[in-house]
Amino acid sequence: MANSKTIRHVTIVGTGVIGASWAALFLAEGLQVVATDPAPNAEAALRKFVETAWPALQRLGLSPGASQSNLTFTADLLQAVSGADFVQENGPERIDFKRKLYGQLDELLPSEVIIASSSSGLTMSEIQQGAASHPERCVIAHPVNPPHLIPLVEVVGGAKTSEDTIRRALEFYASIGRRPVRLNKEMPGHVTNRLQAALGREVYYLVAEDVISAADVDTALCWGPGLRWGIMGNMMLNHLGGGRGGIEHFLQQFTGPMTAWWKTLGSPVLTPEVQRRLIDSVHAEVGSRTVEQLEAERDELLLGLLELRIKRPDTASQRNSRLKSPAAA
Amino acid sequence: MANSKTIRHVTIVGTGVIGASWAALFLAEGLQVVATDPAPNAEAALRKFVETAWPALQRLGLSPGASQSNLTFTADLLQAVSGADFVQENGPERIDFKRKLYGQLDELLPSEVIIASSSSGLTMSEIQQGAASHPERCVIAHPVNPPHLIPLVEVVGGAKTSEDTIRRALEFYASIGRRPVRLNKEMPGHVTNRLQAALGREVYYLVAEDVISAADVDTALCWGPGLRWGIMGNMMLNHLGGGRGGIEHFLQQFTGPMTAWWKTLGSPVLTPEVQRRLIDSVHAEVGSRTVEQLEAERDELLLGLLELRIKRPDTASQRNSRLKSPAAA
Repeated sequence: MANSKTIRHVTIVGTGVIGASWAALFLAEGLQVVATDPAPNAEAALRKFVETAWPALQRLGLSPGASQSNLTFTADLLQAVSGADFVQENGPERIDFKRKLYGQLDELLPSEVIIASSSSGLTMSEIQQGAASHPERCVIAHPVNPPHLIPLVEVVGGAKTSEDTIRRALEFYASIGRRPVRLNKEMPGHVTNRLQAALGREVYYLVAEDVISAADVDTALCWGPGLRWGIMGNMMLNHLGGGRGGIEHFLQQFTGPMTAWWKTLGSPVLTPEVQRRLIDSVHAEVGSRTVEQLEAERDELLLGLLELRIKRPDTASQRNSRLKSPAAA
Repeated sequence: MANSKTIRHVTIVGTGVIGASWAALFLAEGLQVVATDPAPNAEAALRKFVETAWPALQRLGLSPGASQSNLTFTADLLQAVSGADFVQENGPERIDFKRKLYGQLDELLPSEVIIASSSSGLTMSEIQQGAASHPERCVIAHPVNPPHLIPLVEVVGGAKTSEDTIRRALEFYASIGRRPVRLNKEMPGHVTNRLQAALGREVYYLVAEDVISAADVDTALCWGPGLRWGIMGNMMLNHLGGGRGGIEHFLQQFTGPMTAWWKTLGSPVLTPEVQRRLIDSVHAEVGSRTVEQLEAERDELLLGLLELRIKRPDTASQRNSRLKSPAAA
């Protein structure tokens, strides 16, 4: 089987926001990229996106050979996948559409070429039913928007996905500076959307109940626990929260209060009235600032944080845990 | 009434980890600090803590007049509160102890001096029952550990707390570079512990169910949505997640999937077996790294992120929202 070192040509199927962002990333990593999308203005929009994303990618560091000129566009699927070592699929989130697409891709591509789906809402077990010949090379590789900046990729197979496919997908994303994680089971929302939903539910509850304004709950998150989540995960922070006694001491000390808080967490229902309260509170926070201004602020800070985090040498244990995941399962 | 500009002398009651960290912060902000604690080695431990914290505070910028020599220690409560403009209380989390302490403080201090409690587990309505004469000057001001680095302070009054006290407390913390937020209602766990509990519950569920390892769920958080929470709050990120349509479009688009995910979120029970699974997975992640090494890594990144965030000029709207909160309620 091919390993990740041989992946030089990547095909992007679907060049909406996610597909275009993947294209920018792959180009910055020095890969040859062929992109395809049936939409009328797809090529122009894609090239504009890549051009706009390029300065940020330069700041984070381009790989040898990286160039926007390594991007080819074709509206023809057959032509697009010819010579592909790896396919990143970002089509519409409709199961009938996806199955038909996977049927076509499965017929067109040599059996060792991985087809990775960015889908957030469908499972690979559902999608790969369309790939009659080689469903084992199909896998979910779900990024967080925008993939050219946020390093996480959630990798999860369907019922028919092979271990080899999962291992090679994890290796490929790691080889281009991503932080892939492996899910051992298919879950609605994978992992990150579940974590965001869990946090968001309590945030909406507290704002809807007028415990706190949107402005203040945002301050509470991003000047409080969010600062820590921007640098380390929950489990490791719990380990450090236990002091010299580590995670054991943390659980001894906090299981009581934490489970008591769990009992009082809210279950808001997003009625039109509740949505209106959330919207009004957000607008009070936003004031006269435009979405463009706020996006620029977010992206500048995000780049700064990424520079700070990526500068640091990876610890051996983090590297090991990433490479060990597929073998251990 | 005194306003925050006149607060120059702060008394710290209780110099455990939280009290010592507050002392370091107040000193770095150029204030005169008197600390008191009945524990045998309290003074030595406090001075050691402040000395250890000082280089980080220097990196973040000392205020004019800031000096460790502005710290006085006395085991005598009466002496400690003499001349205090503001009291930060960090005593043990036992309601009988707190009520008695607030009775003493209430007798010793002029009525305009605010008594702010760092309590995370008790409410001010309970505590201030001990302050017979002036319960209205007692308020919760709950920091996130360590307060000398994490800027958030959660301010919430009890049933008898005056609006003036809440306003002056918010002003005081803002004046020393903190990011105070105002809770309009008392809630178990205030806000941040509820947010951490909501997220932690799903993290524990996914690890306990072997969906993902501790190492990978930590990667998913801190290289995924955590990166965004390290720079902006959930509501503002939702607003930007809606693109040009803002929060309205976000709610239109994501209320469906989000509420579907809510229905599938886990409710783990932290039995000894589940705790063992969490502990084992954390140890596989930690490997041979010591708590000290990991703490150093966390604190170095945290300082870097704070430098990045604090460097940025506050936007007008953020300033306004902070100052408007007390007046608007």
